[in-house]
Amino acid sequence: MRQMVLSILVENSAGVLSRVAGLFSRRGYNIESLTVGVTTDPDISRMTIACSGSEDVLNQIKKQVAKLEDVIDIQELPNNAVLRELLLVQVHATTEQRQEVIAIADIYRAKIVDVSENSLMLELTGNVDKLKAFLELMEGFEITSIARTGLTGLARGIAD
Amino acid sequence: MRQMVLSILVENSAGVLSRVAGLFSRRGYNIESLTVGVTTDPDISRMTIACSGSEDVLNQIKKQVAKLEDVIDIQELPNNAVLRELLLVQVHATTEQRQEVIAIADIYRAKIVDVSENSLMLELTGNVDKLKAFLELMEGFEITSIARTGLTGLARGIAD
Repeated sequence: MRQMVLSILVENSAGVLSRVAGLFSRRGYNIESLTVGVTTDPDISRMTIACSGSEDVLNQIKKQVAKLEDVIDIQELPNNAVLRELLLVQVHATTEQRQEVIAIADIYRAKIVDVSENSLMLELTGNVDKLKAFLELMEGFEITSIARTGLTGLARGIAD
Repeated sequence: MRQMVLSILVENSAGVLSRVAGLFSRRGYNIESLTVGVTTDPDISRMTIACSGSEDVLNQIKKQVAKLEDVIDIQELPNNAVLRELLLVQVHATTEQRQEVIAIADIYRAKIVDVSENSLMLELTGNVDKLKAFLELMEGFEITSIARTGLTGLARGIAD
């Protein structure tokens, strides 16, 4: 078992998300995360899918996804690719706890995006490990809501 | 026509993404963006969907999504909610252009996440307008790749 992150260029059609998600679902492949956004060409979106499986299963996934009619290009991101996720977390914090939360936010360079009398909302981006470590610290407080985007990523380097 | 952002708590089952995307696709509702990530409970994920339509269509979407078996809770995020997206963009930049790109990155507080001899990769988070304005400036250079997550968000304030 290993994790694979696919970066897929797709036609920006209405049903493309359904077709890709449906392929994984029908064949019992588990999607760990999926993100999608338009590129500089408004007719083309880039979809990033993280999934795990045996080499056999991962090869099947690549072949099956490549066959879908909306798929223009598919690549497996290399191990050294830049992978990032965005996290919003709201914690309950009394006036006394607020400084503690802010101190942790500073260490992780999380942004404070909302403050109320008894809560703080923080925004953090990073790789999976950074988000995990940050959330473990936040669990020392009462987490009231979490929203995260799932992974996106690009291969490093040469742009020629 | 107006835009609506739904924040939906779902059972973290294998087919949930396919069922939600399939509902939109079958009924011809257009998904502008969809992000999904686990919450503090590993069995529950939060899905954030941005879509547009008439009041009638938006009401239908809310009702239909609420009926899906994996859906635990659905709320429309209010206008003042915190909405964020993560963007990675790689631009071609010669040594001379690099300082120009870095100057724009500084203004937008974008992070430089990769540098090669002839390219730079930048990471930026923000609302839709901020990302749009930043990309318009980046188009002055040669954009070689873009990856974006789609919107995630949380309602502000009271955590009681």
